Amino acid sequence: MNRFRIDMAYNGKNFSGFQIQPNKRTIQEEIEKVLSFLLKENVKIYASGRTDAGVSALCQVAHFDTEKEIIEKKLLDSLNALLPNDISILKVESVSGEFDARFSAKKKTYRYHFYISKYSHPIFDEYATRIYDYADVNLMQEACKYFIGTFDFKSFVSKKSGKTDFVRTVYDAKIISLENGIYAFEITGNGFLYNMVRIIFGTLTQVGYGKIKPQDVVKIIDGQDRSLSGRTMPSKALMLKNVDYN
Amino acid sequence: MNRFRIDMAYNGKNFSGFQIQPNKRTIQEEIEKVLSFLLKENVKIYASGRTDAGVSALCQVAHFDTEKEIIEKKLLDSLNALLPNDISILKVESVSGEFDARFSAKKKTYRYHFYISKYSHPIFDEYATRIYDYADVNLMQEACKYFIGTFDFKSFVSKKSGKTDFVRTVYDAKIISLENGIYAFEITGNGFLYNMVRIIFGTLTQVGYGKIKPQDVVKIIDGQDRSLSGRTMPSKALMLKNVDYN
Repeated sequence: MNRFRIDMAYNGKNFSGFQIQPNKRTIQEEIEKVLSFLLKENVKIYASGRTDAGVSALCQVAHFDTEKEIIEKKLLDSLNALLPNDISILKVESVSGEFDARFSAKKKTYRYHFYISKYSHPIFDEYATRIYDYADVNLMQEACKYFIGTFDFKSFVSKKSGKTDFVRTVYDAKIISLENGIYAFEITGNGFLYNMVRIIFGTLTQVGYGKIKPQDVVKIIDGQDRSLSGRTMPSKALMLKNVDYN
Repeated sequence: MNRFRIDMAYNGKNFSGFQIQPNKRTIQEEIEKVLSFLLKENVKIYASGRTDAGVSALCQVAHFDTEKEIIEKKLLDSLNALLPNDISILKVESVSGEFDARFSAKKKTYRYHFYISKYSHPIFDEYATRIYDYADVNLMQEACKYFIGTFDFKSFVSKKSGKTDFVRTVYDAKIISLENGIYAFEITGNGFLYNMVRIIFGTLTQVGYGKIKPQDVVKIIDGQDRSLSGRTMPSKALMLKNVDYN
């Protein structure tokens, strides 16, 4: 048995998320279909984690096992030739049987794009969420630091989550000013709960609007209650930026 | 008669360009339709210049005349409420009768987004053109400087252009490295011919691929022959960035 790591980018817009579901278009299914066709055996891929419907990835990582001998460069070309335009394989790499895309992952970074305006913007709207023009981005930046650390993030998880352990470590959280009035909220952690990044960003917008203070984040975390935090922001602006294995 | 300047952004993807044409969806028609409805009179807008099918604008400028009294802020809100999502009005401003969006324009800046990769990218592809991974961006950067100056740009105009005067001044041309492997070619001039930016960028890719040398740009300009320059690159990656009036 040979194990391979594949790094991929995808545009989440027309997918019902990463994980296979009946009668839905998913990233996992598209890739498994092409891999199985190319390797002439039933191939299953295991990703670092699922991403929700509408969420994109600049770099998602998965692994798969196969009995076949693979020339990595050739498989990379074939995959990209056969996959639909909204998925691209960045790398195919032989790894040891100990590598597990999910359990070997040390850190993940997500990015949430937004812009601040009274009106929606015809170009930015494709991949960024608009927040109202009275938002104070400096307050949002200040609030970011209260998310850094090891906490029980129960206030920042969808009630639909099947998980019972909500303790996660956030290594970094910050707002970056990109070009032309576009911002990115970037957060790095050892793992993220269902909707966690989108709820954290929803809470940051509450700070930006002056409804809560930056330091109120501490109380919201301590409260361990979903009703204390902000709303779940739209998925289209969320991107898995990278997964770290070292 | 009162004259107003409107600044607008649009996503060119689903438009057959700026200028009104029968049975086509155009930016001009969408805006004139809403303006005429709001002002209850037939309003015509005059832009700094047309943009081709598929081309977007971060900031295009137009003017219109009306007999009506206008409260700028209210018109701005109403326009944005009624216009489709792929057009946004950034500003409505009362100007003197001497202001002409086209003839008062001193400089325009266009931006062409691209990325360098063997494979197409599912996210970047929405607004950037892929060029092959053997392109040398440093050579392209070097070639940019040969476009700066006042020249007859006949080699860089579509044969479909109705113009006979091809002399234009380019004030600046450069390649900017944006995030995550995305680049922008930015060019500022006193005006641009039909397809000029897209043909200049097509010529820059020839330089990047090593088919011609950076300094060969001089010969191509001097030749005044469209067959000497590169191909017309796709419109989706082109954006009118701004129009200067001072």
